[in-house]
Amino acid sequence: MIETPYLLFLGDAPDQLAAKVAQGIKDWRPDNAVGQFRMAGCKADVGLKDLTLEEAKAAGAKTLVIGVANRGGVISQAWKEVLIEALGMGFDLASGLHNMLHDEGDLVAASQVNGCTLHDVRVPNVQYPIANGIKRSGKRVLAVGTDCSVGKMYTALALDEALQERGVNSTFRATGQTGILITGSGVPLDAVIADFMAGAVEYLTPDNDEDHWDIIEGQGSLFHVSYSGVTMALIHGGQPDALIICHEPTREHMRGLPEYQLPSMQSVSDMALTLAKVANPACKVVGISVNTQHMSEDEANAYLAKVEADMGLPAVDPFRHGAARLAEALEAL
Amino acid sequence: MIETPYLLFLGDAPDQLAAKVAQGIKDWRPDNAVGQFRMAGCKADVGLKDLTLEEAKAAGAKTLVIGVANRGGVISQAWKEVLIEALGMGFDLASGLHNMLHDEGDLVAASQVNGCTLHDVRVPNVQYPIANGIKRSGKRVLAVGTDCSVGKMYTALALDEALQERGVNSTFRATGQTGILITGSGVPLDAVIADFMAGAVEYLTPDNDEDHWDIIEGQGSLFHVSYSGVTMALIHGGQPDALIICHEPTREHMRGLPEYQLPSMQSVSDMALTLAKVANPACKVVGISVNTQHMSEDEANAYLAKVEADMGLPAVDPFRHGAARLAEALEAL
Repeated sequence: MIETPYLLFLGDAPDQLAAKVAQGIKDWRPDNAVGQFRMAGCKADVGLKDLTLEEAKAAGAKTLVIGVANRGGVISQAWKEVLIEALGMGFDLASGLHNMLHDEGDLVAASQVNGCTLHDVRVPNVQYPIANGIKRSGKRVLAVGTDCSVGKMYTALALDEALQERGVNSTFRATGQTGILITGSGVPLDAVIADFMAGAVEYLTPDNDEDHWDIIEGQGSLFHVSYSGVTMALIHGGQPDALIICHEPTREHMRGLPEYQLPSMQSVSDMALTLAKVANPACKVVGISVNTQHMSEDEANAYLAKVEADMGLPAVDPFRHGAARLAEALEAL
Repeated sequence: MIETPYLLFLGDAPDQLAAKVAQGIKDWRPDNAVGQFRMAGCKADVGLKDLTLEEAKAAGAKTLVIGVANRGGVISQAWKEVLIEALGMGFDLASGLHNMLHDEGDLVAASQVNGCTLHDVRVPNVQYPIANGIKRSGKRVLAVGTDCSVGKMYTALALDEALQERGVNSTFRATGQTGILITGSGVPLDAVIADFMAGAVEYLTPDNDEDHWDIIEGQGSLFHVSYSGVTMALIHGGQPDALIICHEPTREHMRGLPEYQLPSMQSVSDMALTLAKVANPACKVVGISVNTQHMSEDEANAYLAKVEADMGLPAVDPFRHGAARLAEALEAL
């Protein structure tokens, strides 16, 4: 659990895209951030107040979150100065960078001297159990994709928001580092040891109130040969009551695999449902989430209408149109 | 790679079953072992010559392999004395125990003083790549089970032996600690980090001669919710040309999951094949391996005949009848 609220560190971000973690926090959990911290030359701005470390501290910030990708996999000396100063003031640090805060001796030393915590959210800090498959109370929905990076996290966050707007009790359950930084907790599933993957998902989505929905962030794809095992663990560990199929229609091949074509939404739906029924025979596919960012409004609407007719399920782009219809489909279960 | 030949350490095994790793080495790779080492009170005997450390050394043994399960997860002081003496004589040590040789300070110290290697085969010592899904040369067959522990390793080893008896070029590829100790190499797949599982299987089964068969040891089951992600990584990372379905017909529920029924062989076959075709569209299910150890000879034969008729595929128990018919089915591909 990362302590909130955050100060979002944008560093010397070369462009807006580099600050996508900070942007995600601002978009989805604005109450988690008191402001942003930008260094000289920073080209990103997530639209929060620029604060010094002192101002952020006074505003109650507990954790400096690195909301920006670093260049070349190196935590630069310029960043270090800010990070060490923040530790000296009692901030915890949280990062989803590939290179670990824990591998930087000066940061480790400064955190120990000041009694602060370094959160490397790519690395599990829990000894997860082996999955036991026992039926849990409460309800769960999982986003499954035709491919990696098709909008599963966005879909889950939008669905969580739409459910809460309707007064439904729900929790977004992060399974990747961006989601973990946004919400302050979760499981970095792709870094978990194979035997414990499904158990980590059970741990993430424990018994809950009967009317509560866990919205589980998906990972990978059953049809992506590099990561399909992670997807499988989500389906079996998550015991979903409902699946939402996520798709990006303009992709020409599976991400990172030029020789692999995308599966149809129907084949993903059939495969995921058959597998999900092993853990939860009542599971249903309830809707389709399409990432239409590379289509015009007209193209997107025509495409969604066709998918909806073909699949017989609500098909929306939650970014364009919100996730209300997906939330309705869940409520109708 | 563990250096052969071995001396098999049976310690103070309480019964024959506790020495099942040593028995596996004796059964499948007798040339890998010069003899066995038994302590006072040992109740196991794998039928090799009893040798002292000195005699084994003189016979060329390079590695003392712990071929026995320890009691209560503790490497006892009595074992330690033998292990440290062996390190002092220049033996490497290899173990598949849950508790690591590397966690025992005195063993680590003795190995360093003597320039010996400690092999904890449950832990990967390679930085595996992310799977790239690129088609590899050579042929591969994977054992997939209706459940865990139904005889997948046995089937793969028997198939490897049967192929070699027919003059076919083949290699057993171990994916669990027992298989790794038997053959001296492999990937401890259940201990690999999620993102690298399929890549580890690609690493284990690289490009090979067109007429060469890799016989890949299976793990878990697509229908076992605790470990299905590992099975999935084998199917996608292994790119199998052929699948063999493994089953144990007297099991009353999935291993360790009392609430879960076993799937039918047909549903495992259908699911595994659909998934395997993502990575290798030419994949076929070629045979069934049934573990009939809890049936009489008549029951076993009747059961196998019925499975063979129902599935339209050769169905054998490789322990009772050998794996020649499975090898034939592969050759016929």
